[in-house]
Amino acid sequence: MSAASVVGPKEGEGPLGQHFDRVLDDFKAGKDTWEQAESDLARQGIELAVAKAGLSIKDIQYILAGDLLNQEAGSSYGIRSLERPFLGMFAACSTIGEAMTVGSVFIDGGFADHIVAAASSHFGSAEKTFRYPMELGNQRTPTSSWTVTGDGAMVIGSQGDGPRITAATTGRIIDMGIKDAAHMGAAMAPAAADLLMRHFKDMDIGPEAYDLIVTGDLGHFGLELLIRLMSDNGYDISKNSTDCGIEIYDKNTQDTHAGGSGPACSAVTFAGYFFPQLQRGNIKKMLFVPTGALMNTMMSQQGESIPSIAHGVRIEA
Amino acid sequence: MSAASVVGPKEGEGPLGQHFDRVLDDFKAGKDTWEQAESDLARQGIELAVAKAGLSIKDIQYILAGDLLNQEAGSSYGIRSLERPFLGMFAACSTIGEAMTVGSVFIDGGFADHIVAAASSHFGSAEKTFRYPMELGNQRTPTSSWTVTGDGAMVIGSQGDGPRITAATTGRIIDMGIKDAAHMGAAMAPAAADLLMRHFKDMDIGPEAYDLIVTGDLGHFGLELLIRLMSDNGYDISKNSTDCGIEIYDKNTQDTHAGGSGPACSAVTFAGYFFPQLQRGNIKKMLFVPTGALMNTMMSQQGESIPSIAHGVRIEA
Repeated sequence: MSAASVVGPKEGEGPLGQHFDRVLDDFKAGKDTWEQAESDLARQGIELAVAKAGLSIKDIQYILAGDLLNQEAGSSYGIRSLERPFLGMFAACSTIGEAMTVGSVFIDGGFADHIVAAASSHFGSAEKTFRYPMELGNQRTPTSSWTVTGDGAMVIGSQGDGPRITAATTGRIIDMGIKDAAHMGAAMAPAAADLLMRHFKDMDIGPEAYDLIVTGDLGHFGLELLIRLMSDNGYDISKNSTDCGIEIYDKNTQDTHAGGSGPACSAVTFAGYFFPQLQRGNIKKMLFVPTGALMNTMMSQQGESIPSIAHGVRIEA
Repeated sequence: MSAASVVGPKEGEGPLGQHFDRVLDDFKAGKDTWEQAESDLARQGIELAVAKAGLSIKDIQYILAGDLLNQEAGSSYGIRSLERPFLGMFAACSTIGEAMTVGSVFIDGGFADHIVAAASSHFGSAEKTFRYPMELGNQRTPTSSWTVTGDGAMVIGSQGDGPRITAATTGRIIDMGIKDAAHMGAAMAPAAADLLMRHFKDMDIGPEAYDLIVTGDLGHFGLELLIRLMSDNGYDISKNSTDCGIEIYDKNTQDTHAGGSGPACSAVTFAGYFFPQLQRGNIKKMLFVPTGALMNTMMSQQGESIPSIAHGVRIEA
């Protein structure tokens, strides 16, 4: 029924800046901390999606949302003022794919008329949670990605004439032993490949069934790996695929290295950039494949590798 | 179709010890770290539930699971070897309630024939994540709870003659301003009260409609608060209510203060103690209300209060 995107200043300066509904000029969203800012973005995105659908928050029967902060605090603290039934979704940076999957099941099964699916992240709170203190000014490797500040939210309803979710393939956890937390694209590409191959086999189709296959936040290195993995298995996705993490920043001018990441990356790129193209019919059939790395810092410190997942959602104009 | 419980040594020594399927004699489950132990418990619980249902893991179309470690690492690392489609659930200590709700929607809507719902926690990893280093031997307040080490898992199926999930009421986030992270019962009781009142109104029933109303991990203080909150609103639940956090430990001999907590608390108590009573028909109609506190340490350090939630699931023999 609707999709809304709220982003930070850097995302507003990127190639998709004009497509986002709201670009904050303050990285902290007028709050005291990054965590409070992320929570506020989560609230703003949901409220905006509900308003764009012509609904009131009371019309929403379930909010399905998540983020990457410890214990999903971005979502919980942002959503508490909305007073609606809440189901926390967790799939790291692929959370919006899980929320769309579960949401469409609630709608298609007749369990609700209107649900919200949403995901948020914030560069500052993510760096603090996963990487180095920002004050350190640590050098970033070429394969590292840049966490998107923002919230992408959508209203999925049983009525309306907008784009429709017509299928979903749910990811398995794939772990090929990658341990470099600064190379998420390498960790996640095999999960995306597993998802695509299972989807094509389940549906008895090939990549050509889609106008566009859009992964979540594999970035420049990860998408290249995915294209090669698919090619090795007899599928050519080189002609009709892209990645939200590639689309959202200009790598030449924005110092974002491998590309964008974080739960908001695929959520705001879908909501701001792809959903309107589906509404207009410029894209008729799209496979949206948000990707996620399911590690935490403690497991990395204990020498563990990075389990990854991807969730596939088919949307048709 | 089935429910399985795997617990640590302390839970095995408690009043429900004989009811659990598997009691580990090693707090670390033979692993090097608490986090690895929790992951292994998550795997064991799911495999045991699947075996008890007479199924193979390949028969499971979705695993819906979660835990309280940062980024749900307990579930992700435990489940990765199972190679089944995975949807991460997050509702803190009420996660099993969310997983049962979403799982029953997948089954009742015809989207799957067999799903697993599961939740895990570990005393050691939870203390490290939320409280003080165990080596410090810090004194615990009377209102503090004890995180259950274990995993509770169940198979929900479209066939079979076991107990049935016949309704669910999904929680809203309730935050009454409680900031004491050592008094979760006080933070969560209002969320349980909100859930119960909405459930009774939606269904046009009262507490007497149930043989038993079982909350998650309110503990001794929290259940007393809930009974009073309900009484203030005209509902008497004093006769037919209990709490998993009260049932699982003997407060007089086990030094567990307010009672058990953690996602495994309600999951293993339901799986090991209440599910068999529903199977035998000793309990005919039960409202299961796992409760959860949705804070993280960073938000507490920033002076925030504790948002809480409860998820209600009706199970009938």
